[in-house]
Amino acid sequence: MKIREAVESDFEEIWPIFQAITAAGETYAYPTDTSKGEAQRLWMVLPRRTYVAEEGDRILGTYYIKTNYAGPGSHVCNCGYMVAPKARGRGLATAMCHHSQQMAVELGYKAMQFNLVAATNQTAVKLWTKLGFETVGRLPKAFCHQSKGYVDALVMYKWLKVQIF
Amino acid sequence: MKIREAVESDFEEIWPIFQAITAAGETYAYPTDTSKGEAQRLWMVLPRRTYVAEEGDRILGTYYIKTNYAGPGSHVCNCGYMVAPKARGRGLATAMCHHSQQMAVELGYKAMQFNLVAATNQTAVKLWTKLGFETVGRLPKAFCHQSKGYVDALVMYKWLKVQIF
Repeated sequence: MKIREAVESDFEEIWPIFQAITAAGETYAYPTDTSKGEAQRLWMVLPRRTYVAEEGDRILGTYYIKTNYAGPGSHVCNCGYMVAPKARGRGLATAMCHHSQQMAVELGYKAMQFNLVAATNQTAVKLWTKLGFETVGRLPKAFCHQSKGYVDALVMYKWLKVQIF
Repeated sequence: MKIREAVESDFEEIWPIFQAITAAGETYAYPTDTSKGEAQRLWMVLPRRTYVAEEGDRILGTYYIKTNYAGPGSHVCNCGYMVAPKARGRGLATAMCHHSQQMAVELGYKAMQFNLVAATNQTAVKLWTKLGFETVGRLPKAFCHQSKGYVDALVMYKWLKVQIF
């Protein structure tokens, strides 16, 4: 499994992953009916960098890194990770999160923040916690889960300066 | 004092307020050297609505309202408020915050979130707390204050559904 920076043509393989995850409406703050063009803008154009995790010539996961807030907030980055449903449980999210922390430091960021982690997404919460992210906030009913309705969202945060992982 | 929706030509009066506040680098996550054109985009174009508080024909304050996150997060709005330095201590921020909560409900939002309140900005923290906002998170060293260096930032949140203020 190799992680490399994405190129534009990778989006053809990223799109089914993006679509499956956002259509579920359980984890990401993107509209469940986000169009392909808008998805490309959100995942490939707006972020500072986009990466893919591939096995052979198949893309199994992807993540982006971007500056979370500008100016006095610009030393904190934000990342989003997606793993193809068929490739779950194989450590791709862990590998991509490690990689993203390394990239974040190289890009000059001092901290990484996840702004809106659905509290129901226990797989993610457990994983980020294991990887050193602290739950620094809890937003009451800030995430409208497709089947569970309004659920709390967590703000998770890690200072990257001294040690990456 | 009257609060009304901003029109494009209002930006000539908004700009000195915006510039004074962002150049100080103490409260807003905008670059301290944000250009006039970029400021107009950030304050007047990107938000869903922008309002001004005026006395006679002079603009003394302004705020925006926008959707904080898309899709499953889109019932939560975000606002930013600016008061002209010469008009401080006269209740304009309070009046604008009350107004914004009313507008938020009218626009269909269920909650309001402030993403990055510098913990050193005690005037704001006290005021938002008084107006019913809860400090739901604390981001360690997430704000680089122009003179104090890295300071914590607070996430403040208010569910608007039942009662506005």
